[in-house]
Amino acid sequence: MKPQQKLLNSVDRCVDEALEGIVSSSGYLSLLRGHRVVVRADLEALKGRVALLSGGGSGHEPAHAGYIGSGMLSAAVAGGVFASPPPASVLAAILCLRDAGVSGVLLIVKNYTGDRLNFGLAAEQARNRGVAVEMVIVADDCAFDQPSKAGRRGLCGTVFVHKLAGALAEEGCPLDEIVSKVTEAVKGIGTLGVSLSPCSVPGCLPSFDLPAGEMELGLGIHGEPGIKRSKVTSADEVVKTMVDHMTNPASQSHLSLKSGDSVVLCVNNLGALSCLEISVVTRSAIRYLEGRGVQVARVMSGSFMTSLEMAGVSLSMMRADQEILRLFDAKTTASAWPNLSTVCISGTSYILDPPAKDMQETSHTEGPLSDVMRKALEAVCFSLLQRQEELNSLDRASGDGDCGNTHAQAAKAIQEWLPSHIVPGCPGQLLSTLAGLVQERMGGSSGALYSLFLTAAAALLKDRSDPAAWANAMHAGTDAMRWCLDALCPAVEELRRLTTSPPGGHMAILQAAVEKAELGAESTRDLTARAGRASYIATVHVTLPDPGAVAIAAILRAVFEALGGQK
Amino acid sequence: MKPQQKLLNSVDRCVDEALEGIVSSSGYLSLLRGHRVVVRADLEALKGRVALLSGGGSGHEPAHAGYIGSGMLSAAVAGGVFASPPPASVLAAILCLRDAGVSGVLLIVKNYTGDRLNFGLAAEQARNRGVAVEMVIVADDCAFDQPSKAGRRGLCGTVFVHKLAGALAEEGCPLDEIVSKVTEAVKGIGTLGVSLSPCSVPGCLPSFDLPAGEMELGLGIHGEPGIKRSKVTSADEVVKTMVDHMTNPASQSHLSLKSGDSVVLCVNNLGALSCLEISVVTRSAIRYLEGRGVQVARVMSGSFMTSLEMAGVSLSMMRADQEILRLFDAKTTASAWPNLSTVCISGTSYILDPPAKDMQETSHTEGPLSDVMRKALEAVCFSLLQRQEELNSLDRASGDGDCGNTHAQAAKAIQEWLPSHIVPGCPGQLLSTLAGLVQERMGGSSGALYSLFLTAAAALLKDRSDPAAWANAMHAGTDAMRWCLDALCPAVEELRRLTTSPPGGHMAILQAAVEKAELGAESTRDLTARAGRASYIATVHVTLPDPGAVAIAAILRAVFEALGGQK
Repeated sequence: MKPQQKLLNSVDRCVDEALEGIVSSSGYLSLLRGHRVVVRADLEALKGRVALLSGGGSGHEPAHAGYIGSGMLSAAVAGGVFASPPPASVLAAILCLRDAGVSGVLLIVKNYTGDRLNFGLAAEQARNRGVAVEMVIVADDCAFDQPSKAGRRGLCGTVFVHKLAGALAEEGCPLDEIVSKVTEAVKGIGTLGVSLSPCSVPGCLPSFDLPAGEMELGLGIHGEPGIKRSKVTSADEVVKTMVDHMTNPASQSHLSLKSGDSVVLCVNNLGALSCLEISVVTRSAIRYLEGRGVQVARVMSGSFMTSLEMAGVSLSMMRADQEILRLFDAKTTASAWPNLSTVCISGTSYILDPPAKDMQETSHTEGPLSDVMRKALEAVCFSLLQRQEELNSLDRASGDGDCGNTHAQAAKAIQEWLPSHIVPGCPGQLLSTLAGLVQERMGGSSGALYSLFLTAAAALLKDRSDPAAWANAMHAGTDAMRWCLDALCPAVEELRRLTTSPPGGHMAILQAAVEKAELGAESTRDLTARAGRASYIATVHVTLPDPGAVAIAAILRAVFEALGGQK
Repeated sequence: MKPQQKLLNSVDRCVDEALEGIVSSSGYLSLLRGHRVVVRADLEALKGRVALLSGGGSGHEPAHAGYIGSGMLSAAVAGGVFASPPPASVLAAILCLRDAGVSGVLLIVKNYTGDRLNFGLAAEQARNRGVAVEMVIVADDCAFDQPSKAGRRGLCGTVFVHKLAGALAEEGCPLDEIVSKVTEAVKGIGTLGVSLSPCSVPGCLPSFDLPAGEMELGLGIHGEPGIKRSKVTSADEVVKTMVDHMTNPASQSHLSLKSGDSVVLCVNNLGALSCLEISVVTRSAIRYLEGRGVQVARVMSGSFMTSLEMAGVSLSMMRADQEILRLFDAKTTASAWPNLSTVCISGTSYILDPPAKDMQETSHTEGPLSDVMRKALEAVCFSLLQRQEELNSLDRASGDGDCGNTHAQAAKAIQEWLPSHIVPGCPGQLLSTLAGLVQERMGGSSGALYSLFLTAAAALLKDRSDPAAWANAMHAGTDAMRWCLDALCPAVEELRRLTTSPPGGHMAILQAAVEKAELGAESTRDLTARAGRASYIATVHVTLPDPGAVAIAAILRAVFEALGGQK
């Protein structure tokens, strides 16, 4: 087993280079030569005020350098990846702040043995040099049921502490008062994490093994395993498990939270969870808390204290009164602090009625064709759903692998629509209805293309529905699409013969059209795609038939067979 | 092969739930009922001004809802994951803005067939209803050497366009003027991506296969493969390849960039790259551009337009004059826009000298013990480096798996120090020096613990260096650590016998001490760790010896053997 490949220059230098990247791109930060210490470039602004210093191991970016700015930290000290910083660097940072004329220095330290030790040593050494230094330990971990010697770990709730203490320092609050206010606030902060993957320190193997489909609850931010392993369930259930565990009075490390309490919620991406998932989890958390009668006052959602590339999320909550919200809402220039509104989340309505529609649905009546058209639609839906994975697989060769899913969405939309609606006897009305369904529910270019095709075809099937009218409608539909789809064109050419065919010869022509469509789809193996996303792909990838063309041939065959054609 | 497990409630509803999460947590956004459309809650603020509408497939969060706010977008329309939104929703969004009394609507559309089609259809339908609608197509992709029919894709550079157009609309600029200014700016925008992994649409298999250690250059944001596959090299080399390709005049899709030009740089996490890696890449990009004589005016670094959980990064550049920088710097309340300073990055110095040291290094002289102590140190370093992976592996059971690396760092630091320094004849001076080296270079709790141990021990070896002094020093060191390390305590007890041992009996005592240390290390199999990070871990994980204890036993054995002890 080899360490995971990362985009770095060297394992040894990665922390220094990351800090250089953060500082050199900021425009308002400086690096202390010879140390992994980041300080505000405008240190003179701190004169006479309390300075805030935090830090800890690297690998938790944007913590802690991202929280430096007016209204938050004055400086941050970084250790190696997941390693506590050396006391000499902490001391250098403190002395640098002292030289800027600050009235005192508050160290905000996460409760890990190494950090307590190293920051504690430096604090002692600084006090010996006459600097007023105090230390606040953040221990917000809600994982452990039973007391542990080392106590609760310091996790993402530390970011809340940076914000509150930063706002107080910015207002000119003295050191002892900041310490007492923040110490009180820390009691109302709790955090719990869950992950679907381990992470790996650069140059090392992953921190633990986690089989696919399992998750680890209650882990720390250094890849250390958690307290419980279980199957990954739905986002709603995972959030419920987390919040229930965090607030369970039987657990030694719980956060006391009752109905009527007000909280600030932080949904923190531990690294590699997609932003889509983070947003879904955010929704689950707000709804579940509100369901328990808790008022969610503010929500921050994003990457605040990561654990390298761990695919996980942590929830932090802070009980909040008006004073805490005032400090939370105060302005800061720290780059990792998000743009948040100061509106209370719970109780704010966020659903808006869309503008009145300019068109009304027309009423439909059944006709002699309704039954066969219903059967054909059912057959089309069945075929598309049956071939979903095959189409996805073809699409993966050149597109994003969802052609089967897109078509399945359309099929499901039609299947849902069928039982509760009559199938209009007029094919033009049916195609218009299908155009609307497909446009709304299928999505993507495919939805738009099918919708255009059906809309244009529908216009020619309003007053007539004889074979020639169908042939012309298909032609008009294809014309409207302007993109010459490889499966449809040959079939449509074949169908043209319907305009002149003798009675009774229609099925043979239909069969030929289906076969032409299948041939057309097959022939796309040799073609570079002419439009759509696949056209962006280098030709070397196109050795499989175009999945869109295969889908169209499948639709035509399903219709043909539903009409009694030969299987 | 099964689709990757994600933290969602359902594949079908994930986009709707993610939008609900984004909107319900914002406090300043609204969702249009029945559509995947997000609009500013304070639509009345747009009266008489141009409104900006963007959007596209989901899976690119925070794009596009995260860019809604004063000074950026007025609304965003989302499609399914990687699927273009239906025209009906785009139209509903436009009509909603019309009803708010805007003077016109600008659609900002990424150059993908589906988006052009669906936004284009809606724009036509809106114009038929008398709304002043214009469309700007963003095609910033620099991947393709050769012209392709569909043209360059729209990628992360779109975020620049949101910002510029948003600032113009906020100042009251009329629609046609915004269109012409933005169209001009788009010509100076280029983007290129690289990824170390594919991504997978919820419910689908990964978009492509990528062997470990390889990377794909020039991919789009929908998991479609890129233009070239190669081995992952260093961050510096990857950035050079990217920037060279982006700006190669021989490529049809290049961005023209010459020495003396000024650019805004965006380093965009495509999803799952760690923030640490993104910061390293940011450093590489700034340095390489500056090396080519390009002035880097502003840098934004983070997750701006993702591709679900793809472990990749894209670089976007925008040629910038004073007017473009003014618009880029303008205020916005959009949640995904970062806090940036308005300082020009290139030319700003960011290295600060640390405060003057309060202590000076004392000079050392060699002595009769120097040679044997050098040999012992060499043996210790050799042993620790040899057992690096074994220690890591033990540590993975309960810690973060870096115990071997931490000790190797100390060993390398000592190995680097040895050739250029004399080994002082006074053991106290040597231990002090080692304490400094270890504190500075080893990091973590281990560094602090070793440093404390060595510092305290050194004090008792300043004037004496007989066996009894060594015994007392070891004891003092252990006392100072306060944590009773499982390997050290029994060994130190054994070493106590040195204080009373007859001449010539020292080696036997040393051997016994080494064996006690090894036994002590072995006995930690049955113990719950008493301190350090491992103490946070449920006991079930601790079935292997404590790696820190194993390391100490290894150090003692190496010293013993260097002194001539039995192997």
